[in-house]
Amino acid sequence: MTGKVICVGLGPGDPELMSVRADRLIRAARVIAHFRKAGRPGQARRIVEGMLREGAREIAMEYPVTTEIGFATEEYDGLLARFYDAEADRLAAIAAGGEDVIVLCEGDPFFYGSFMHLHWRLGGRVAVEVVPGITGMSGCWTATGVPITWGDDALSVLPATLPEAELVARAASADALVFMKIGRNLGKLTRALAAVGRLGDAWLVERGTMPGERVARLSEVDPADCPYFAIVLVHGQGRRPGAPRAAVAAVAS
Amino acid sequence: MTGKVICVGLGPGDPELMSVRADRLIRAARVIAHFRKAGRPGQARRIVEGMLREGAREIAMEYPVTTEIGFATEEYDGLLARFYDAEADRLAAIAAGGEDVIVLCEGDPFFYGSFMHLHWRLGGRVAVEVVPGITGMSGCWTATGVPITWGDDALSVLPATLPEAELVARAASADALVFMKIGRNLGKLTRALAAVGRLGDAWLVERGTMPGERVARLSEVDPADCPYFAIVLVHGQGRRPGAPRAAVAAVAS
Repeated sequence: MTGKVICVGLGPGDPELMSVRADRLIRAARVIAHFRKAGRPGQARRIVEGMLREGAREIAMEYPVTTEIGFATEEYDGLLARFYDAEADRLAAIAAGGEDVIVLCEGDPFFYGSFMHLHWRLGGRVAVEVVPGITGMSGCWTATGVPITWGDDALSVLPATLPEAELVARAASADALVFMKIGRNLGKLTRALAAVGRLGDAWLVERGTMPGERVARLSEVDPADCPYFAIVLVHGQGRRPGAPRAAVAAVAS
Repeated sequence: MTGKVICVGLGPGDPELMSVRADRLIRAARVIAHFRKAGRPGQARRIVEGMLREGAREIAMEYPVTTEIGFATEEYDGLLARFYDAEADRLAAIAAGGEDVIVLCEGDPFFYGSFMHLHWRLGGRVAVEVVPGITGMSGCWTATGVPITWGDDALSVLPATLPEAELVARAASADALVFMKIGRNLGKLTRALAAVGRLGDAWLVERGTMPGERVARLSEVDPADCPYFAIVLVHGQGRRPGAPRAAVAAVAS
């Protein structure tokens, strides 16, 4: 009997927001793996604190290098590729030995998640399952108390790592906007939203659903601030029978 | 003591994919409300079948009119507005009487959900809480077995109700695409994706995570088909250290 590799989405951060299936698999796991920066406990591991069974074997997969911004050098690519190769081999060997391995993943695994890099490497070697999760962005727009999309709104999800001119062009063309990977891109993103007249409608949500949650108007955030686990969003204003726009905006304030 | 109105996201359809908090609130609910088409059991109610406590009071909120396509007439708007007004009054009265009301919502309530129309009407009258859920689209891209976004991919979520020319323009400009509200718009959407050379990479997912789930290449779907609970998606092809694109595409087939 060979085991499986099962990646479970943990949701936006509050442990009660993981799925019933994820909760069940994590509590029963004999082998559990997670990504982290070297020397850090890791956000995924922190979310499941107190849930693991006695004697569970923990596997920390430590990134050889991490950054908030996109890297496109051959050196970076090679380092990451060898890291994912080695971790895929390690998990495949455990599954081949008959044990299931539960891999923790913040948010939803197939939405910008690191597990994707193991997923295609494991394909065809061992059985792999993925349990979806609530995305970090869902946790953040829920924290603002205002719906992100209505009726026929179009939503664009954009990495703030894009060049400023591209952020401007894309921010002008969608009804609702979500920007990921904020960090050091905050000043650039603030300028881009101001350029298309949408800075006044933009919100920064940091640590959504987690202790220390912060919801702030982006126009009131210091652009030199470099927040972690943050998302910037602009709510859609689509069809809502009977509602003046002002009535909806009032909910947020 | 006044009660609260708490809207819980049910996730994509599989009852095990609702959050631990949603599961707990639904099982404990004394009053539980859901939307449905007149004369139908309702998808939200079907998801929680077998979970309600004995004697729970059920409130069915029946749409006066429903459609897959966008309606912009004054008559439609007025009908819906009066319906939401009346249902908000009904829930507010129950909460004012001291009972919590749990409102069921498929997917994630603040992402194209009907509860939004009650939410702003209830604001300032009773305490309202929203529990996020896994979106239907997360369930669908997980069902394809391929990640939707990688690295710095931009994702556009678009209603297939948009005019064909706009679908063409928007389909050309994003890395990853999700189309909602398929139904009778399937033929138009298929033509738009073909026009920008992306039909071959498009997938139709119907009833994602539910019994009868179907994942099919859009190019092999009859455009006269009019699927329910369906999403069309095109996966992003962003940065993935060490992976040729072909290796990833192979996972899906």
